[in-house]
Amino acid sequence: SALQRYREQMRTELDKVVDFWQKYSHDTQYGGFFTCIGKDGKIYDELKYVWLQGRQVWMYCRLYRTMERFNKPEILEAAKSGGAFLRRFARIPNSGSPWKCAFCLTRDGKALKVQRTIFSECFYVMAMDELARVTGDKDMQAEAAQMMDQLVHWVRVDPSGLGKPQLSGDTPVCSMAVPMMLLCLVQQLTEARSGEEVDKYREVGGWCVKQILQHLQRGGTAILESVSSEGKELPGCEGRLQNPGHALEAGWFLLQYGLENGDQELQRTAVDKFMEIPFLTGWDKEHGGLLYFLDVDGYCPTQLEWSMKLWWPHCEALIAYLMAYSHTKEPALLDRFSQVYDYTFSHFSDAENGEWFGYLTQQGKVTLDFKGGPFKGFFHVPRCLYMCEKILDSILNKQET
Amino acid sequence: SALQRYREQMRTELDKVVDFWQKYSHDTQYGGFFTCIGKDGKIYDELKYVWLQGRQVWMYCRLYRTMERFNKPEILEAAKSGGAFLRRFARIPNSGSPWKCAFCLTRDGKALKVQRTIFSECFYVMAMDELARVTGDKDMQAEAAQMMDQLVHWVRVDPSGLGKPQLSGDTPVCSMAVPMMLLCLVQQLTEARSGEEVDKYREVGGWCVKQILQHLQRGGTAILESVSSEGKELPGCEGRLQNPGHALEAGWFLLQYGLENGDQELQRTAVDKFMEIPFLTGWDKEHGGLLYFLDVDGYCPTQLEWSMKLWWPHCEALIAYLMAYSHTKEPALLDRFSQVYDYTFSHFSDAENGEWFGYLTQQGKVTLDFKGGPFKGFFHVPRCLYMCEKILDSILNKQET
Repeated sequence: SALQRYREQMRTELDKVVDFWQKYSHDTQYGGFFTCIGKDGKIYDELKYVWLQGRQVWMYCRLYRTMERFNKPEILEAAKSGGAFLRRFARIPNSGSPWKCAFCLTRDGKALKVQRTIFSECFYVMAMDELARVTGDKDMQAEAAQMMDQLVHWVRVDPSGLGKPQLSGDTPVCSMAVPMMLLCLVQQLTEARSGEEVDKYREVGGWCVKQILQHLQRGGTAILESVSSEGKELPGCEGRLQNPGHALEAGWFLLQYGLENGDQELQRTAVDKFMEIPFLTGWDKEHGGLLYFLDVDGYCPTQLEWSMKLWWPHCEALIAYLMAYSHTKEPALLDRFSQVYDYTFSHFSDAENGEWFGYLTQQGKVTLDFKGGPFKGFFHVPRCLYMCEKILDSILNKQET
Repeated sequence: SALQRYREQMRTELDKVVDFWQKYSHDTQYGGFFTCIGKDGKIYDELKYVWLQGRQVWMYCRLYRTMERFNKPEILEAAKSGGAFLRRFARIPNSGSPWKCAFCLTRDGKALKVQRTIFSECFYVMAMDELARVTGDKDMQAEAAQMMDQLVHWVRVDPSGLGKPQLSGDTPVCSMAVPMMLLCLVQQLTEARSGEEVDKYREVGGWCVKQILQHLQRGGTAILESVSSEGKELPGCEGRLQNPGHALEAGWFLLQYGLENGDQELQRTAVDKFMEIPFLTGWDKEHGGLLYFLDVDGYCPTQLEWSMKLWWPHCEALIAYLMAYSHTKEPALLDRFSQVYDYTFSHFSDAENGEWFGYLTQQGKVTLDFKGGPFKGFFHVPRCLYMCEKILDSILNKQET
């Protein structure tokens, strides 16, 4: 059947992607991972981006822990090496907070850049918690929990520790990325656990969902990337910005949360709004594929890359539509999945050297030909393939029984 | 003759561009200029970017002061309004330095973003000094001089006032933009002046030229955008980055400096290296136009926009080749100018609504269709047209006499 073909493809592709990163990304001298990797595996830059270090540790551990064929010592060893590198070097001493992480490190772990946002720290939490699940290291788990407390404090209480100067015109803006990341961490930290700490995280999770839903604007017809702290539309380009891939990712986060909590209304909103709207507005009817940014009023976005096709929105779309189909069994959602699948595998996947290209022109031509870069690591592609394989397993297993 | 046709085109186009910005960009309510202006003149965002405010003040004043047909009260009034807005709102109180400027302001002048670089301040100096030349305001000229002192201090003595945290892996990097901007300011502040202050600036100018020349690397075969503080090539992507438009702009800065100081060797280096190399490496032989970024070893740059064609490198190329031709009379340089001219006027200039588009795909299709944005204001296009008209005047006047 079509579903079996999809599963076979996801499985084969995941094996190839894991092979690629195992073969080329490990820094056996200093630990951690190279992520600037050319189309045929050549390292073209040795900098180590903390987001991508954390994501690779997380992904290796998740594969090791939940997929039998990846439960291999070399996967665990690579994850541990990355975790040790992060633990030793990612946090910046004397930055005003003991928990502020760098954005970028030199090959040997010296801090090179720091962002005034929370994302390096988020991927640090993901990495440490998942690694602690695999190794049973309680100290590491506690460290993830402490970092999480700091993150929640920055987001909900006082952002001044992030180091941004207070400016009179800089009114608070709610970016959808922030509650999405925190919700992702809540799911990470609560999975198969219980107790007081988990109750605390569940409260954070509920808050994140409310925050994400504020981005559904204009009478439920648009998902806007940034809104005011009162949940209203912001003026100008910033207020009108749509990021279809991000909305789709939020869609499957919300659907998952709605399923775990038996919230049917949330499940419907996730599918009918966060998955449907970005397709209607973001799918390029002429050339296929999802556009990167759009202005809700049809102005041209100011982001130079707005019309490019990036790999990760397509990864998120595949997860979203397959997850939605598996729970609703609505054929239209499987059609959506198929449409994205066809575009994705014919444009991004590299049959010759393995892994995926990340950046295409609007017309679908590869325009940045590396497999890994400052923002593309071992994360969106394998997470997509892993989740799709799991979902297809579950659909096909139910059909068989 | 061809030169006469070029001059006619530059003149007509400059008139149209000035009209466009006079018609659409003036904020008569709060002062200053809108710069986010759609293809047909519509304001799509009210934010005020300090770089662009300063550049527009400078350009209006320069036109007013040096071109008879722009010596009109409405041009002066617009410049004064922009200058007053900048003076009142651009500098950030309580930022650690009395001279730190914001990067972006709200429509009514509240600071929204601040960069940890020197460029907002540089355009502030340009604006204030040129406006002082027109109005005779000595306080304003003194303010420009004080800001210049602060800039030189940040660049040559101590950058800590810029607000960047000190990180162990963040070794000093020399970006070509910094000495280029300072050299531009030196030329601004010394024009037709003399005295102690001017001698001080001349020393800075000499230092800037030496710094810029350090970017000529690999035995004189490549212009690299960033080098180490010892003038050596840096590792990785950062070290290999080439920005052809920037090299061309540096080329005409150096040529102008070499001419003013009777330095023939510098003149030759400007033409043979800073103008020749970026053309050989940066001109797209398949689609025409100058690529935005390149890696000197042929890797793919990590900048998503690397293969796009932006308006400003073409503006700088037109100035560079025409200036070089006017001094050397080498026909090959006029051919270069013609080649860039043909591409530029057939791709960027908008005959329908005036002004230029700024952003094309590699294939030459307009992909961001606004006339002004966060980084495109009343500067590169009118400066190019103004300078080309002046240079063509000088060539043609010599021919006639």
